[in-house]
Amino acid sequence: MRAVDLIRRKRDSGILSPEEIRFLIDGYTRGDIPDYQMAAWLMAAWIRGLNPAELAALTEAMLHSGEVLDLSDLPGQKVDKHSTGGVGDKTSLILAPIVAAGGLLVPMISGRGLGHTGGTLDKLESIAGFNVNLSIAQFRDALRACGCALIGQTAEIAPADKKIYALRDVTGTVDSPFLICASIMSKKLAEGIDALVLDVKTGSGAFMKKLEDAEYLAGLMVETGRRMGKKIVALITDMEQPLGRTAGNAMEVAECIEVLNGGGPADLRELCIELAGWMFLLGGRVPGVGEGRRLAEEMIASGRARDRFRDIIRQQGGDVRIVDEPERLPHAKRKLDIPAPSAGYIAGIDCEQVGIACVMLGAGREKKEDAIDPAAGMEFHRRLGDRIERGGPLATLHYNSDARLDEARSLVEASYRIAAQAPAPRPLVHKVIGA
Amino acid sequence: MRAVDLIRRKRDSGILSPEEIRFLIDGYTRGDIPDYQMAAWLMAAWIRGLNPAELAALTEAMLHSGEVLDLSDLPGQKVDKHSTGGVGDKTSLILAPIVAAGGLLVPMISGRGLGHTGGTLDKLESIAGFNVNLSIAQFRDALRACGCALIGQTAEIAPADKKIYALRDVTGTVDSPFLICASIMSKKLAEGIDALVLDVKTGSGAFMKKLEDAEYLAGLMVETGRRMGKKIVALITDMEQPLGRTAGNAMEVAECIEVLNGGGPADLRELCIELAGWMFLLGGRVPGVGEGRRLAEEMIASGRARDRFRDIIRQQGGDVRIVDEPERLPHAKRKLDIPAPSAGYIAGIDCEQVGIACVMLGAGREKKEDAIDPAAGMEFHRRLGDRIERGGPLATLHYNSDARLDEARSLVEASYRIAAQAPAPRPLVHKVIGA
Repeated sequence: MRAVDLIRRKRDSGILSPEEIRFLIDGYTRGDIPDYQMAAWLMAAWIRGLNPAELAALTEAMLHSGEVLDLSDLPGQKVDKHSTGGVGDKTSLILAPIVAAGGLLVPMISGRGLGHTGGTLDKLESIAGFNVNLSIAQFRDALRACGCALIGQTAEIAPADKKIYALRDVTGTVDSPFLICASIMSKKLAEGIDALVLDVKTGSGAFMKKLEDAEYLAGLMVETGRRMGKKIVALITDMEQPLGRTAGNAMEVAECIEVLNGGGPADLRELCIELAGWMFLLGGRVPGVGEGRRLAEEMIASGRARDRFRDIIRQQGGDVRIVDEPERLPHAKRKLDIPAPSAGYIAGIDCEQVGIACVMLGAGREKKEDAIDPAAGMEFHRRLGDRIERGGPLATLHYNSDARLDEARSLVEASYRIAAQAPAPRPLVHKVIGA
Repeated sequence: MRAVDLIRRKRDSGILSPEEIRFLIDGYTRGDIPDYQMAAWLMAAWIRGLNPAELAALTEAMLHSGEVLDLSDLPGQKVDKHSTGGVGDKTSLILAPIVAAGGLLVPMISGRGLGHTGGTLDKLESIAGFNVNLSIAQFRDALRACGCALIGQTAEIAPADKKIYALRDVTGTVDSPFLICASIMSKKLAEGIDALVLDVKTGSGAFMKKLEDAEYLAGLMVETGRRMGKKIVALITDMEQPLGRTAGNAMEVAECIEVLNGGGPADLRELCIELAGWMFLLGGRVPGVGEGRRLAEEMIASGRARDRFRDIIRQQGGDVRIVDEPERLPHAKRKLDIPAPSAGYIAGIDCEQVGIACVMLGAGREKKEDAIDPAAGMEFHRRLGDRIERGGPLATLHYNSDARLDEARSLVEASYRIAAQAPAPRPLVHKVIGA
């Protein structure tokens, strides 16, 4: 078998067998197949696409490029959630304690902020002492003790994905639904889960801006998950505006604590209840998603989810006092309000630009080696369809460094569109795929 | 400007500006743009294609990646011929002396055998002492002294093409008409020529097997040459069977001497007269191609072309005695006739397989580092449409090593198709593009 023949086949819209795909992925992971051959194959796959069998084979080859966790010694169903990423998307921190408190195991391997989006690991690290770099043994201990654990991708998990992702980033082959699907699913299936709820974002703050693109990706992931024997469902949810009231790591942790205390913004709370409902259903805890939602609400109302959040923080070495005293979380020294330039209704928000503004304030990284300011970020005072007066506050920037403040402010100002009419309301959950 | 953005643009069927293409080619030649980014771009360009302006810009960027010869101090029009390659295609050795004897300058930079095809440099090196590795200064001296010179690509000429060709070879991006056009034209235009006659082969022994593919490539090259201000024409010629009576380096030199002596096989002689006629026309020596053909015939009949061939060999250090005593050329120690398995007419020849059999006998290279046996090769006793009796000789293999003799014989036996009816005759020149 020669890599160049497999490149030519895909180039000519041909189909590769599972053995051929494994040859490519294993060879590339070992270093026998050089970057330039994988780059040519990835471009051919980007343009020509993969059929369901090829996609499943690619996912499986990437999954088995490293360690696949076997959690079968831990009793109970293991369920996870994965989001394709957005601005202010903080549901993992709320879902993990709700679902663990509700009796399922949640082995969650999360990522860092990417581009304009935030990342679960960065949010958790705004809690003093919180350690996301657990060994596999510590991860198991945490799961046994708390029913959930939140860690970063280890070197042992899907090394092929790490290597391929870095190559895709510099060869213009990131935004392929096939390659995205294989990347996400290979990592998630390496967690040793039984079921997975996907939160596929769509709208101006999502990677898949168009609903049909989000649906297509969701369909691929559901199909791939099923082929690998997993219970799986995908919710297409709205990212036309930031989720909740804040974006920025420490501020988002505080907002999560509000939800766990029974408060918090309605959209964030509703989405968490919805996702938790599906996780309970797929994990076999309830007979229907309605019962799942009610169980989630009960976990909040009883305080058991919040208590479980305390357990997780303690287990992973974090300062548990922030749950009852969120003011102990990092705060920015300086704030700047963005006033509305005219009166009217919020008719549109370029949510990706808002996310980029947060990165500029220090809430995310432009380059891998950049440090994050946990206190930096933004508060949102108006949502789509809200009325605002001229000079009223659209958003407040939180920052410690004003190095790129002007740039961030201009971006935010240009991101809000105010009109005489309120826009048609958008649903929070557009569709459920695979139910 | 970032390479990844240009990769994405081509991936999405977008158009690159000349500056952007120059950025890619210059960056890659210098080593600032890595192999994997160029590989991804080449694959995108293979699949999406290039428009005429992009192709001209690519050719120009590759051309200017190295030295472009300025021969303006040598009086007279400089004309070259380029063939896309075939089996038994030996016209360069005949054309150079004919056209130089007829009063034009022929600065010919040639290649080596590639795949199943032979190469001019390999043929010349079967003449003892012949040096194809002249410096640019020696090349000028030879042109001044003989009116023509036959050398290999130097390190100074189109280095981008050398680097890109090596990458295309291992990334499945060789057989793109766009990339082939840029590769050929960048090298040829670096020779400092005024006019170029292209011999684009089509048929079972050509790289472009289908007539329409050959025509498409020819059209691209003519268009690109015109954009760069060159007089240019492309002949689509037949490669459904070997050209002339032999394939194999020393045997082909002997066959060329026959033609220069006024003999030789009709097809080879006819094609040389035709190509020389066009070279004379484009070089302004004659008012029409008919007069060009007659001038070429005159150069042969008068012996001036043969005398000029002697001059070239002497100038480039070769053993000039082979012109009058071709038996001094290397001869194989052993021969093997391939008999016809049945009586009938030669109805088909898989010419590429015949070329591969020649390589197996030692006439070409399978790997870059392989040595060539100048004496090895094949004689062809029957052409398409010829009658043969059962057991009559189809071809004779000439070889010194029998390491792969059986394999070669099987290939040749399987390549000839004998039928009760003669096939329709094929023209030697299918079309002239750009006249």
